[in-house]
Amino acid sequence: MIIITESTATEEQIAQIVAQVREFGLEAQVSREGARVIVGVVGPEPMIREKPLAAMPGVEAIVPAAKPYKLAARDTRRAASTVEICGLSIGGNSAVALICGPCSVEGREQMLNIARMLKESGASMLRGGAFKPRTSPYSFQGLREEGLRFLAEARNETGLPVITEVMDARDLPVVERYADCLQIGARNMQNFSLLREVGRSHLPVLLKRGFGATVNELILSAEYILNEGNTNLLLCERGIRTFEAGTRYTLDLSAVPILKAKTHLPVVVDPTHAVGLREFIPQMALASIAAGADAIMLEVHDSPEHAKSDGEQALLPETLAKLVPRMRAVANAIGRDL
Amino acid sequence: MIIITESTATEEQIAQIVAQVREFGLEAQVSREGARVIVGVVGPEPMIREKPLAAMPGVEAIVPAAKPYKLAARDTRRAASTVEICGLSIGGNSAVALICGPCSVEGREQMLNIARMLKESGASMLRGGAFKPRTSPYSFQGLREEGLRFLAEARNETGLPVITEVMDARDLPVVERYADCLQIGARNMQNFSLLREVGRSHLPVLLKRGFGATVNELILSAEYILNEGNTNLLLCERGIRTFEAGTRYTLDLSAVPILKAKTHLPVVVDPTHAVGLREFIPQMALASIAAGADAIMLEVHDSPEHAKSDGEQALLPETLAKLVPRMRAVANAIGRDL
Amino acid sequence: MIIITESTATEEQIAQIVAQVREFGLEAQVSREGARVIVGVVGPEPMIREKPLAAMPGVEAIVPAAKPYKLAARDTRRAASTVEICGLSIGGNSAVALICGPCSVEGREQMLNIARMLKESGASMLRGGAFKPRTSPYSFQGLREEGLRFLAEARNETGLPVITEVMDARDLPVVERYADCLQIGARNMQNFSLLREVGRSHLPVLLKRGFGATVNELILSAEYILNEGNTNLLLCERGIRTFEAGTRYTLDLSAVPILKAKTHLPVVVDPTHAVGLREFIPQMALASIAAGADAIMLEVHDSPEHAKSDGEQALLPETLAKLVPRMRAVANAIGRDL
Amino acid sequence: MIIITESTATEEQIAQIVAQVREFGLEAQVSREGARVIVGVVGPEPMIREKPLAAMPGVEAIVPAAKPYKLAARDTRRAASTVEICGLSIGGNSAVALICGPCSVEGREQMLNIARMLKESGASMLRGGAFKPRTSPYSFQGLREEGLRFLAEARNETGLPVITEVMDARDLPVVERYADCLQIGARNMQNFSLLREVGRSHLPVLLKRGFGATVNELILSAEYILNEGNTNLLLCERGIRTFEAGTRYTLDLSAVPILKAKTHLPVVVDPTHAVGLREFIPQMALASIAAGADAIMLEVHDSPEHAKSDGEQALLPETLAKLVPRMRAVANAIGRDL
Repeated sequence: MIIITESTATEEQIAQIVAQVREFGLEAQVSREGARVIVGVVGPEPMIREKPLAAMPGVEAIVPAAKPYKLAARDTRRAASTVEICGLSIGGNSAVALICGPCSVEGREQMLNIARMLKESGASMLRGGAFKPRTSPYSFQGLREEGLRFLAEARNETGLPVITEVMDARDLPVVERYADCLQIGARNMQNFSLLREVGRSHLPVLLKRGFGATVNELILSAEYILNEGNTNLLLCERGIRTFEAGTRYTLDLSAVPILKAKTHLPVVVDPTHAVGLREFIPQMALASIAAGADAIMLEVHDSPEHAKSDGEQALLPETLAKLVPRMRAVANAIGRDL
Repeated sequence: MIIITESTATEEQIAQIVAQVREFGLEAQVSREGARVIVGVVGPEPMIREKPLAAMPGVEAIVPAAKPYKLAARDTRRAASTVEICGLSIGGNSAVALICGPCSVEGREQMLNIARMLKESGASMLRGGAFKPRTSPYSFQGLREEGLRFLAEARNETGLPVITEVMDARDLPVVERYADCLQIGARNMQNFSLLREVGRSHLPVLLKRGFGATVNELILSAEYILNEGNTNLLLCERGIRTFEAGTRYTLDLSAVPILKAKTHLPVVVDPTHAVGLREFIPQMALASIAAGADAIMLEVHDSPEHAKSDGEQALLPETLAKLVPRMRAVANAIGRDL
Repeated sequence: MIIITESTATEEQIAQIVAQVREFGLEAQVSREGARVIVGVVGPEPMIREKPLAAMPGVEAIVPAAKPYKLAARDTRRAASTVEICGLSIGGNSAVALICGPCSVEGREQMLNIARMLKESGASMLRGGAFKPRTSPYSFQGLREEGLRFLAEARNETGLPVITEVMDARDLPVVERYADCLQIGARNMQNFSLLREVGRSHLPVLLKRGFGATVNELILSAEYILNEGNTNLLLCERGIRTFEAGTRYTLDLSAVPILKAKTHLPVVVDPTHAVGLREFIPQMALASIAAGADAIMLEVHDSPEHAKSDGEQALLPETLAKLVPRMRAVANAIGRDL
Repeated sequence: MIIITESTATEEQIAQIVAQVREFGLEAQVSREGARVIVGVVGPEPMIREKPLAAMPGVEAIVPAAKPYKLAARDTRRAASTVEICGLSIGGNSAVALICGPCSVEGREQMLNIARMLKESGASMLRGGAFKPRTSPYSFQGLREEGLRFLAEARNETGLPVITEVMDARDLPVVERYADCLQIGARNMQNFSLLREVGRSHLPVLLKRGFGATVNELILSAEYILNEGNTNLLLCERGIRTFEAGTRYTLDLSAVPILKAKTHLPVVVDPTHAVGLREFIPQMALASIAAGADAIMLEVHDSPEHAKSDGEQALLPETLAKLVPRMRAVANAIGRDL
């Protein structure tokens, strides 16, 4: 860590900064650059990180010693990680995966029907919500364990592995019983208790970026999961809140190459929730692949006007069927399969 | 609910919209305005709310039948609610309350010292974090139950009621044993499981706005708590994420009069976390009172450069002591005590 | 236009709304939907648009009669427009165009050198700033007419048409003397005087989206230019301001399919200014093409560390040379040339 | 300026950084802090500011030598400036000024009527738009010189000085003939040609913050005006674009104490345009004064439902008359007059 003082810092302020560093049991190396003093701080990092030296009078800037994350950092592993989910590989040089399904599991027939159509269209994984985080307490909250059972049945019939959201640590055992991959939703990206719990699960985890969270905060939330020992982790960009009201959120596709450069983790893009308007989702799915996404997550519903949630943004199965070869062409254009 | 069709909607599309409404067991009343058709939908609201009619071809706009929240709505109660916490009233015409304390409980002596100084300065309630939601897993995570004990001891000595954050439903019993008011932090504003749990607590709750959440979403999260039966609820504005990087967040003070007009709940402002820079917090505390806040929450630390978290934004006790009479003068200017 | 009253609107308020509509010389057709009244307003649109009926007591919502823009609207022309610049076609089914060059024209040799390299790499148009909008008055402000001369010389040698920014209506004659296409920068997107002036120019115009502007506002600014008679107009997405500080702006790629659905105008994407970090620009250029962009604008500099502006985000000519075939592959994948 | 290298920077990269600094005719002082190298750069600042050293391989961070603005900086003058407009003082310890009037000048009678009511209510300055920057070319664009004449007549009758917007340098002579203070609107905050022109005017200038601009960019735009010699400059906060759609913009009141700490210029707040909803403007006017604003700008219209622009946000004259004593009470509470 390097502390740079203001050009107007007094000698007394500088002495206090140095004294403070030493009080923490750390070493301080002082040098001068014109009107400013540079204090190099040497010592174990976690100790330094906690100390609010920035609060001291006379301090202008602090350049941290290292990135605040370690386990997620690209340089930790050098290469990209691959996550295996029931034989499906995501990340590295694997084919781009297609994670599709309805927003909510609404019934047995619906789930089986959609799953069969998705399998045929070329989807590689099945999504569907059984525990639903809804903005309003009066909205449909999901079929819970019954929904999980329908998902598992669809998996058993089609062979597609199943991903579903877990919202509460107390639901984890039941979700683990049925699912092949756990999803942490955007609203729980900084539910640190829950992150720790799924960090101890034997199942892979897909962590969605909060719509008010920065890329760095997403990585730090990933660090909570990795730190508990679960390294089967996927990161997911799904749109952030901005002033643009023409789309539901703003899909921040730049996050894809940035996450892939900063971390070794596979990156998934969910254009459905970001855009929120059915007609513009195919273009953004193509763009996500071109930007380097390792998997695309799409809401698909066979009867959107009957959907219990998010009907206005679900693709029809026939739209997906036509989109898949176009996605494959773009994937091939950048040297990947799909 | 009123459905307005596009001016280019075909007769077939209109017939399908009407058929869909009727299939839901609802009544549809059709009238025409120039090139457009207006479909009035009559029936029980929660049933209507779930139906994604907006997804149907030919629909231009939907004007909902009613506000999406009920229990929090101002018109439900007509008057402002007052929340009582160990004899302290917040809201209505009560005096503006001052909720002060360190970001984290760091030790017994620290907590007792600060509590005594705050009591003397005129604070009406004590804050301090025992369970800390930290962006990084490597940051100080709080003293947990030990911290709660120090808080309770400070309350016993000074008589100031104590508020502290609960991050996990499983911690609720232990927090309830020591605290007088529960805090739901910004990062958990849409942790719906947790909202339901504190909605069943006998303790009052302060619900912080998520930094990526709209005012309407804050009210809907409040609705989760109210819907479980806990009506001792305070809402708290603490800054939202914007492009302006000169402050930690952007304090959205307009939320104060809006929340007070839309809901009957008391509104608290936390300028400390919003601004994040010690020197500008007093002015924003004064502005918050002038905007109509029922309580002000301020971080105060007797030795910010030793703070385990957020030192750069904590006020010194002597700054608070000088600020209190100024806050009282502004409160008086708008006809309130403090 | 349709006015919908609040469910609590009084008969007197409704009568006043109707009286107001009639006072404007417009017709009012009143019908009822449950507790609400619907007033259809009939009459010439520009007259209606100005009337602030929304300000009247009892009004809940107003659904406007038509889109606020006409000349830019897709349905005006049915098909996509093509803009011709010295034989280069942009838009429609034309090949994706590549508009490349340095941020600023810095000297004769620099400009000629870069132009030759760009020509060889496959660029179809040359960019370079002679009049520079700089945040600080102390930054390099451009070579002005001298810079225009160097641009024109580069065009004459390479045959690549030249685009450059005009910041002031008074500079328009001199810019028109040298340039083949005018650029309106993001900071001038709502400089309505300037929009009107370039709307009277014989040269095509590229209009950049302001970083604080919505997609609808961009279209309305386009409408200023079209309304003066200049229909050779390109729209350009170049990133918006959001809370994410990891990139310079947030590239809003969803704007591409939306602009192409709402308007008939060609859409250009400038990933350089949006991302601001050289290493992530190639991925976003590929994504822009996949999203449907008609042209890509890229800053290229042969010696970024000597650039007078924006060196940190300029691609090296050799990076561009390698990127072009990859961009072409993605364009081909979605059925276009490049 | 201080350059800090990455901990992985090679010796060759460091040598190139140093060589680059020297090539600029500047001195480089090299020291080491653990794995990193610190290069102090000494020399004339404007020369340094232009050099994109950040673009060089191996550079991690650059701490600039000084603030990017000089003339606006608080430390340039030490004390707060006061701007005099026809005998009215704004800034320093002057009374808080009230700048009121309609959005647009709509007619002679309207302007005179409103001016008389405002004078009576205690307003200290008159606002009204004659040249209107409208998002749509089909909206009312202002009465132009005729509007200026009505404004001047209202000034002559009431003695209230007059402020009005100038949108185009070519209109400046005619505006200067009638107005007492020039306004640069939010959409022109980075119209640098226009800033330079008003910087040469003999009239004071009120510069509004762009809704997509940071506080630092506002100060740099101020610097353009000051740099031309016009030091009679007021800065105005009027709301920024955020994801919160419940208000028109988000009023960033923290900008008030920050602008007053960073610059010596008076700070005006315009809550009308920020909030956009009549019923919440009084509370935000009170909050603006408590935050330290030197003047408040409010839209007032005697017949908002007939207003040609922004009727939904204009206060009624009787609302203003009741608000003035409340604003005065808050001003007094923080030790100021109004």
